[in-house]
Amino acid sequence: METVKNFLKQKATNLRIHSILSTSEAGSGHPTTCLSAADIVSALFFHAMRYDCSDPQNPNNDRFILSKGHAAPLLYAAYAEAGIIPTDKLCTLRQIDSILEGHPTPRFAWTEVATGSLGQGLSLGLGMALNGKYLDESDYRVYVLLGDGETAEGGVWEAAALASHYKLNNLIGIVDVNALGQSQRTMYAFDIDTYCQRFEAFGWQTVGIDGHDFEEILPALAQAKASTDKPTMIVAKTFKGKGVSFLEDADNWHGKALAKGEELDKALAELGPLNLDVPVQIESPPAVDTNANLSKTECEPPDYPPDEDVATRGGYGVGLAKLGSANPNVVALDGDTKNSTYAEQFMELHPNRYFEMFIAEQNLVGAGIGLAKRGKIPFVSTFAAFLSRAYDQIRMSAISQANIKYAGSHCGVSIGEDGPSQMGLEDIAMFRAIPEAVVLYPSDAVSAERLVAEAAAHNGIVYLRTSRPQTPILYDADERFYISGCKVIRQDSADKATVVAAGVTLHEALKAHETLAAEGIAIRIIDLYSIKPVDTEALMAAAAETNNTLITVEDHYPEGGLGDAVLEAVATEDVHVHKLAVTGIPRSGKPEELLEHHGISASAIVQKVRDVIA
Amino acid sequence: METVKNFLKQKATNLRIHSILSTSEAGSGHPTTCLSAADIVSALFFHAMRYDCSDPQNPNNDRFILSKGHAAPLLYAAYAEAGIIPTDKLCTLRQIDSILEGHPTPRFAWTEVATGSLGQGLSLGLGMALNGKYLDESDYRVYVLLGDGETAEGGVWEAAALASHYKLNNLIGIVDVNALGQSQRTMYAFDIDTYCQRFEAFGWQTVGIDGHDFEEILPALAQAKASTDKPTMIVAKTFKGKGVSFLEDADNWHGKALAKGEELDKALAELGPLNLDVPVQIESPPAVDTNANLSKTECEPPDYPPDEDVATRGGYGVGLAKLGSANPNVVALDGDTKNSTYAEQFMELHPNRYFEMFIAEQNLVGAGIGLAKRGKIPFVSTFAAFLSRAYDQIRMSAISQANIKYAGSHCGVSIGEDGPSQMGLEDIAMFRAIPEAVVLYPSDAVSAERLVAEAAAHNGIVYLRTSRPQTPILYDADERFYISGCKVIRQDSADKATVVAAGVTLHEALKAHETLAAEGIAIRIIDLYSIKPVDTEALMAAAAETNNTLITVEDHYPEGGLGDAVLEAVATEDVHVHKLAVTGIPRSGKPEELLEHHGISASAIVQKVRDVIA
Repeated sequence: METVKNFLKQKATNLRIHSILSTSEAGSGHPTTCLSAADIVSALFFHAMRYDCSDPQNPNNDRFILSKGHAAPLLYAAYAEAGIIPTDKLCTLRQIDSILEGHPTPRFAWTEVATGSLGQGLSLGLGMALNGKYLDESDYRVYVLLGDGETAEGGVWEAAALASHYKLNNLIGIVDVNALGQSQRTMYAFDIDTYCQRFEAFGWQTVGIDGHDFEEILPALAQAKASTDKPTMIVAKTFKGKGVSFLEDADNWHGKALAKGEELDKALAELGPLNLDVPVQIESPPAVDTNANLSKTECEPPDYPPDEDVATRGGYGVGLAKLGSANPNVVALDGDTKNSTYAEQFMELHPNRYFEMFIAEQNLVGAGIGLAKRGKIPFVSTFAAFLSRAYDQIRMSAISQANIKYAGSHCGVSIGEDGPSQMGLEDIAMFRAIPEAVVLYPSDAVSAERLVAEAAAHNGIVYLRTSRPQTPILYDADERFYISGCKVIRQDSADKATVVAAGVTLHEALKAHETLAAEGIAIRIIDLYSIKPVDTEALMAAAAETNNTLITVEDHYPEGGLGDAVLEAVATEDVHVHKLAVTGIPRSGKPEELLEHHGISASAIVQKVRDVIA
Repeated sequence: METVKNFLKQKATNLRIHSILSTSEAGSGHPTTCLSAADIVSALFFHAMRYDCSDPQNPNNDRFILSKGHAAPLLYAAYAEAGIIPTDKLCTLRQIDSILEGHPTPRFAWTEVATGSLGQGLSLGLGMALNGKYLDESDYRVYVLLGDGETAEGGVWEAAALASHYKLNNLIGIVDVNALGQSQRTMYAFDIDTYCQRFEAFGWQTVGIDGHDFEEILPALAQAKASTDKPTMIVAKTFKGKGVSFLEDADNWHGKALAKGEELDKALAELGPLNLDVPVQIESPPAVDTNANLSKTECEPPDYPPDEDVATRGGYGVGLAKLGSANPNVVALDGDTKNSTYAEQFMELHPNRYFEMFIAEQNLVGAGIGLAKRGKIPFVSTFAAFLSRAYDQIRMSAISQANIKYAGSHCGVSIGEDGPSQMGLEDIAMFRAIPEAVVLYPSDAVSAERLVAEAAAHNGIVYLRTSRPQTPILYDADERFYISGCKVIRQDSADKATVVAAGVTLHEALKAHETLAAEGIAIRIIDLYSIKPVDTEALMAAAAETNNTLITVEDHYPEGGLGDAVLEAVATEDVHVHKLAVTGIPRSGKPEELLEHHGISASAIVQKVRDVIA
């Protein structure tokens, strides 16, 4: 123990020195937050964890998630001390051409998943733990280092509940209780018992320790590893700034780097020199045969009776189940809405790859991200409106470059009587704003099925928007649909304007087409099932042939949705875009009444066409 | 007790009958969820709670929040049985012209706050409890009825932690443990102890009861009322569908109304007839002198040395503190970022009206909504990026028609080295999509201060976007700024294009202006500090005089932001809009390097102008 202790102490000192040096060089960063966790990280990286130093993606590596992402310099220091990155790279921290960013991102290959928005790490870890225990059946463990202040985040407790429910003994959390948040003391200061009681109440094994004493850290980690059916939370009492007297537990040092010169020199003098001869021996997990070619997404074709109305959410359910049969990497998660989103069809066919995540959308998404980073293709579903509950996690999934698919059902006023709390009306805006996200909005069950497969075939974030009402089948079973595509479903040389729609409003546009035809007015209709990226060429071509007049109609608020996507595509051209969307805050009512009331019905389209061509 | 018990039983039966009848008439709704909570609601409305039947807004009323909002029919039934609304109105449930919607909204005057998105009620109640205990110093109590499934929501635990931290003994929760979620059993079924242990661990007094036995319900409520320093959670074991044998604890009945005819008749037969002679005597709280005229928002004018750079977040801090001095109804809440958002200046001047909400943004917003509904003017601040954590709550705040102000600091890549997890890049899109929200983006500290006051003067949701970097003062202290206004800050008859910007990019535009002027190219510059509503007239006028060419520049992703707002304004005109925005997923770096790297710097503007006028 003594040798091990001394070794880990020396490594921890090195981590402290690196953290201080790199942040001082950068002129910014969170050194005191690194100092409180240095001993814990030393114990994890140089004693407890098993990982393949030549391969961050080895599927059997223990996983480490820095939930308190602002301790990034400590993370990078650990990899330097593990011999994985050169130590002299540490001083490039936060520079514009460095892979070592202010908070961890996948630009640094050893970042499991991007963090920095607090309270998300435990969900990310939960996803990886679910993967390890139930999918890969690997014996890797997932370690999540949290700050104490961040345990105020509800996301932590969503993950805590699900982790014990799923008996994730391979999930080990450590809370770094240094009692200082960003702007003041935390609610519980050094009250370790309160943290322990809370995690215990949530079904975890808990161990309270002195986070600077290896004689407590190491046994706690051993105890955690020995758990057979419960996740473990190690609650570590620490001091922010530990190791430097004028930083230890001092107020007003959050997020401040030491100034080069006297301040920095003083700190370094206290820490002593870098311990240079402390080679590590990191246990590597067994090698793995990766099953290549798990990229199949060709599914059984759609098969609907032509006269039967089917909701696009129905097409999603069927398509997802078929996709699960085609590709064993596809997994599904839902937030107690599976009988509404129809994720339940996947569950029935592939129960081992379906995870019920209950009414907790932040964790639903976070776990999905974790699964995606472990090589699965997760389809995460709930009502479109409730994806807004996880918008921070969705935002972070882009920074993580996660290959994750989101499905939001019950979009728009067309859900009817349940009313506005259940209506997704800003979800297109949410997802359009996510860099590189694909946004798909199928208008019938055939295209819904096909686009589920397209989503899986695409590498990156995809959002699929589905509707509640049953609508007619529009397309033949062999019709194909592509990201960035669209369908011109009505066209005539006499077309006076083009109506661009998707989902329920496409069907309203078809009704409007008939009404107007009877009046001798022809309109073109485009099914804009790919809202991002959008088929600019097709839009421009249609505009050119229809008086440069586009009328967009969407079951969504006016801002940020289908209409704005069209506007953006034609922004630098002389094309006029007339936007119809849901005006005002919606209310309960029958779907058809609401479409009328909120200005997106067939008659609203008819009236707009008449006004515009006059 | 016996008389009281019988009385409450009869009322409960009436509530059950009304819930079933109204949902069957509507053809939709959640009757079984109403049936599990009917006894609890009877005890609350007809025994425990004190409210003024003539005035839902009486500031001293006990407040009732239906966190499990889908039990709305039960809520309406309670008000009918209280004699407040006519019983025959109940059968208008969910109709398009009824105030009784599928989930409660303020269209029904007795709805304290809109619910329906689960897990938000406890935060809303916490805000009202904070108001009661610390601001109004009223002795009203706040009762929150939660479902068991919804306690999986992290928002519940954020509220739980803050409620005990703030010793909110006036906050009383009841969890209706009927063990059935939407699509399956909850995680804990009827394990009352687990719920109790969890709330106890979070510092609450807890009482486990049979939720259908008034001999347990009434003492529990009395015990809750007797608490002097802790909130109370009553954990009630119930059966979904209680009172109708074929519904009780039956699977697959969530969200289903009984079919009129045999099914409905059978249920009604079991419940027996309405008890017609059960008049209520509801205790009314004392009358209140309302302090009228608390609408002052005229503040001390800005006062910056002309050559000193000040961040707009600095202007926010000063402006908010001044506003607090002008108007005693203004309160501030922040999520452990007060030394970054500068809400701390308000805290220092008005400590009794500042609430530290720690690292828990869902609850930060939910509590703000509760305070707004109780007549305060809350300014809720954190990093713009972290407001995404509370987007569901923000969405619901619009449905609640809450007079709440949101302030997001550290927007854009201009925050620099901390990197993308801390950058607000989709926040304008988020808030533009909120119906009737005002979106303001001041470009200097003078306008930031002024717009804080304008935000308070406006009735409704306002979002203020502030930046981290210090920037020059642009405006004189006596310059005024208005919602839907803008400022043309450079103009010349020779202008070849108009650059529309705000925040840091406005300053980049000014630099570009100088560079281009040296090349003999004149550009107009508009400070679009009001992004929603936008000054369409000014944009059109500028376009008309500058070759119908607008170039928008924003420290935000391309979708849904300032550029889209401009596009929307000129959508039906022959105006070309060239959008500059943050391309790709940002990274760490110096602010000026990032502006360059992501295409929104002065040189990017210069190049775009050259390209466009060529």
